[in-house]
Amino acid sequence: MNCIFCSIIAGEAEASVVYDDANVLAFMDIRPFTSGHLLVVPKRHASGLSTLDSDDGARIFSVAQKIAAAMRTGPLPVDGVNLHLSDGAVAGQEVFHVHLHVIPRNRGDGFGLGALPRTPNRAVLDSTAAVIRGALN
Amino acid sequence: MNCIFCSIIAGEAEASVVYDDANVLAFMDIRPFTSGHLLVVPKRHASGLSTLDSDDGARIFSVAQKIAAAMRTGPLPVDGVNLHLSDGAVAGQEVFHVHLHVIPRNRGDGFGLGALPRTPNRAVLDSTAAVIRGALN
Ligand SMILES: [Zn+2]
Ligand SMILES: [Zn+2]
Repeated sequence: MNCIFCSIIAGEAEASVVYDDANVLAFMDIRPFTSGHLLVVPKRHASGLSTLDSDDGARIFSVAQKIAAAMRTGPLPVDGVNLHLSDGAVAGQEVFHVHLHVIPRNRGDGFGLGALPRTPNRAVLDSTAAVIRGALN
Repeated sequence: MNCIFCSIIAGEAEASVVYDDANVLAFMDIRPFTSGHLLVVPKRHASGLSTLDSDDGARIFSVAQKIAAAMRTGPLPVDGVNLHLSDGAVAGQEVFHVHLHVIPRNRGDGFGLGALPRTPNRAVLDSTAAVIRGALN
C-alpha cells in the first residue's frame, strides 16, 4: 500500500503536527484553503466512511471539535470554522485515507460552498427520507 | 429560546425524519444542495462546537457515517458523500443549533467548494501548527 497519510503516521513523511494520540493524528494541510487549515485522521487506515471503524470516526470528530474550539479562543484571528469531509472521488476526495478538514474562517477569506440550494416540496422530501430510511434498515 | 431545530426535536415543527434515537435526530434539509441532503443534529441544544457536549459530537458523526454508508449502498444514485459543518456565521452557519450536513454526491450535481488552495512553505506550516498546538494546551 502506498498511502501518504499512513507514511506521515509512521513518521516516514514530513508533516506539521498539531495533535497526536494513540488513535488520531492532526497535521496541517499542505494546500490550505485558509491559514490554519488542517486535517484530522485516524491512525488505522480506512479508505472511506464505509470501512472506517465507528469508534475512530467518533474520535476524529471529537479531536476536530476540540481543535475548532481552541482555534476560536486562541491567538489566531478566527471567527468561525468549517469541518468538511469528502467521501469518494466525486465528492472531492484525493487521498484515500479518511480525513476530516478543519478550516478556520474569517470574513473575506475566499472560502465557501459553490452550490445553489433547491426548494423541493414536503412530499418530495418525505419520499426521499423514506428511501434513505429504507437503506439504513 | 426560539430554535427551529429544537422545535423539530420536540415534534412541534414539521420535518422529514430519516433517523431518530435517544440523542440524535436526522432529517431532510429543506433547502438541499443535492437530492438526499440531510442534517444530523444532537437533541440537546448547543449553538456551536465550543458548547457541544463531546459525546453528542461523537454521536452525530457516527450517525452521519452510517447514513453516508447507507446512501452509497442504497437505491439512490450516490457516488460519493460530503459531510459539512458550519460553526459561526462567517462559516455559513444559519441555524444556531449544531448540525452536520450529509450531502450525497454525483458527477455534475453542481455542488462543490468555492476555494483556491494556497501553497505555504514548510516553515509557515510549522509556525501555524505551533500556534494551534499552543491554543490546544
Ligand atoms: Zn493510509
Ligand atoms: Zn436548538
